[in-house]
Amino acid sequence: MHNSVGIVSPINIRFNEPLKLTSGQFLKYYELTVETYGILNEKRNNGVLICHALNGSHHVAGISSADLDDIGWWDNMVGPGKPVDTNKFFVIGINNLGSCFGSTGPASINPDTNLPWGADFPMLAIEDWVNAQARVADYFGIKCFAAVMGGSLGGMQALSWAINCTDRVLNCIVIASTPRLSAQNIAFNEVSRRAIISDPDFHGGNYYAKNTKPSRGLSVARMIAHITYLSDNDMARKFGRTQCKPSENGSYRYDYNIEFEVESYLRYQGEKFSRYFDANTYLLITRALDYFDPSRSTNGDLRLALLPAKANFLVLSFSTDWRFPPARSREIVKALLKNGNSISYVELDAPYGHDAFLLNDSRYHAIIRGYYNRIAQELNLN
Amino acid sequence: MHNSVGIVSPINIRFNEPLKLTSGQFLKYYELTVETYGILNEKRNNGVLICHALNGSHHVAGISSADLDDIGWWDNMVGPGKPVDTNKFFVIGINNLGSCFGSTGPASINPDTNLPWGADFPMLAIEDWVNAQARVADYFGIKCFAAVMGGSLGGMQALSWAINCTDRVLNCIVIASTPRLSAQNIAFNEVSRRAIISDPDFHGGNYYAKNTKPSRGLSVARMIAHITYLSDNDMARKFGRTQCKPSENGSYRYDYNIEFEVESYLRYQGEKFSRYFDANTYLLITRALDYFDPSRSTNGDLRLALLPAKANFLVLSFSTDWRFPPARSREIVKALLKNGNSISYVELDAPYGHDAFLLNDSRYHAIIRGYYNRIAQELNLN
Repeated sequence: MHNSVGIVSPINIRFNEPLKLTSGQFLKYYELTVETYGILNEKRNNGVLICHALNGSHHVAGISSADLDDIGWWDNMVGPGKPVDTNKFFVIGINNLGSCFGSTGPASINPDTNLPWGADFPMLAIEDWVNAQARVADYFGIKCFAAVMGGSLGGMQALSWAINCTDRVLNCIVIASTPRLSAQNIAFNEVSRRAIISDPDFHGGNYYAKNTKPSRGLSVARMIAHITYLSDNDMARKFGRTQCKPSENGSYRYDYNIEFEVESYLRYQGEKFSRYFDANTYLLITRALDYFDPSRSTNGDLRLALLPAKANFLVLSFSTDWRFPPARSREIVKALLKNGNSISYVELDAPYGHDAFLLNDSRYHAIIRGYYNRIAQELNLN
Repeated sequence: MHNSVGIVSPINIRFNEPLKLTSGQFLKYYELTVETYGILNEKRNNGVLICHALNGSHHVAGISSADLDDIGWWDNMVGPGKPVDTNKFFVIGINNLGSCFGSTGPASINPDTNLPWGADFPMLAIEDWVNAQARVADYFGIKCFAAVMGGSLGGMQALSWAINCTDRVLNCIVIASTPRLSAQNIAFNEVSRRAIISDPDFHGGNYYAKNTKPSRGLSVARMIAHITYLSDNDMARKFGRTQCKPSENGSYRYDYNIEFEVESYLRYQGEKFSRYFDANTYLLITRALDYFDPSRSTNGDLRLALLPAKANFLVLSFSTDWRFPPARSREIVKALLKNGNSISYVELDAPYGHDAFLLNDSRYHAIIRGYYNRIAQELNLN
């Protein structure tokens, strides 16, 4: 396929050395599912790590060998000749620890019980993901990534990489992200979790054994989240007050079935999500989001928290993103400027809300492309 | 009590003439619960109708005789010497038809079955509320209200009064409102309804007979709505990332119990609401909100839709209200200006989001007071 990494298959890597978690708990061993695109060069200095957002996975680019309709979630960004050019870079997509697309998570077997972990799966912090991922870098013999990059939660992971694996990140690319959640962000997460936990099919997190799952709660959670991914104007433009299959005289139905297009869209998104995503993973990831706050150990001083970071930074935000508005990115930028990091910041005027980071916008892609071209030049990757 | 209307008791008014509803259905008879404050003058021209928002009631001001801790929801606004001065005006608070504080609603007895209406209670439109309320005006012998006033949904009712009862509204006061819901507004309503309807205790709306109620779903619905009532900054100011009872070393709990103050606040609000509010009423009112669109009959032209309105208008919006932002109020204002109505518009710079319309802000109250003083002068009520 032109301009694509083609058909790709994931690999599972098992790590037998126990992983100490931020919570104090241990994982005796874990597996991470990864995909790679492009070729690791001899110097092993052309590695790029892509960190995924809440519902993402290792399947960043190309066509899944297991399902030829399944295109990677950032396929417009990663591939031969694309902004993250796999002719030059060796790109790794990793499914986060605790997620539900192959890596060890709540649905995996707990070695102590031989049953699914369920509610007993340990809570994870973003720093735990970074530590788990660092072993993937070791596995590939990558001492330092040319870039670690992500949007939204993925951007927070990239930031955490730059702070916690100081010498292993040459460039850190943080898109549509934030240095910590606001009270409103936490509030939306909490409502989503309540919807899941109060679903009678949740069974305290141990629903696997009951052969059921809290689909209704997870669907509501996804609907809530989805509203925060789109801007008010974008929703108005896409759906407005358009009715779904109105009756002949256009009158309302006067019931609680689908009346407006926006309802149809949200229900579809919610139901689709509840079929493929694991509710325990949803809880775990939203909690990790809540907890992330590098400045917690520096009395709220983000500059001090970012002081260990040596990487060069590209920070990008989108004007209509009300989940993680540009002001949150600017907090990161100000702190890094004070610390003397090399930093580029771009605030893109785009109407698509938070989801803009996933979309194909030529200005956005030109910026990423330009930044990676400079990396390639500096590392003589051409 | 100083500056209060004192202890008040509601009255129920029964209307035996059938009410034709916008949906085409009929209510054979209905009751409305009202409270009144102040004295209706001989000319019966000092009447003020207060329209409530989603969770409001007829209990606008004073102390409830049934519960001395129950102060009216707009007690800071209505009373002797207050902005809506009950020494001059005769103020009526009405519980909307379909609500759950005494007026006929889904929990009332269906005369055809002698069982609670439940899912069979007819859907209502805002215009139906206005028509039902007009009979209350008749009951008191009020041909024309000195003012009809409301915030949020109450503002939409006031607007509907001005359009549909052209000669019965001298002044229309529309606060923190909108001429119609946006796609995002509808989206939040729809998610709330899904949370309720997918609660197994909902039983298709006929939960009264099962002696249960969909408390979990209603609680989630309220939590979602509550987020939209506060501004992002206000939440940050009130709660920030403050932990609830942190452990001695301040570390996180690493679980899904309450960790942050904002979670505690939202759960409390959700649970409280689910105890006193009826889920069917919540569905009914959010649907009436979705449906309201005076410009539906004029091909989206709000100016034409407002053409029948003869009232003088005061329109107020709050800068940080992201549920019904100032731009929505300005749509109303622009249409009314084109129509040549007398209109005052104030956009208040206030940090409290949508909820600002309920709060005691001296600039806000001074504007309302001034407006009512002018009404009193014009009507020689002093």
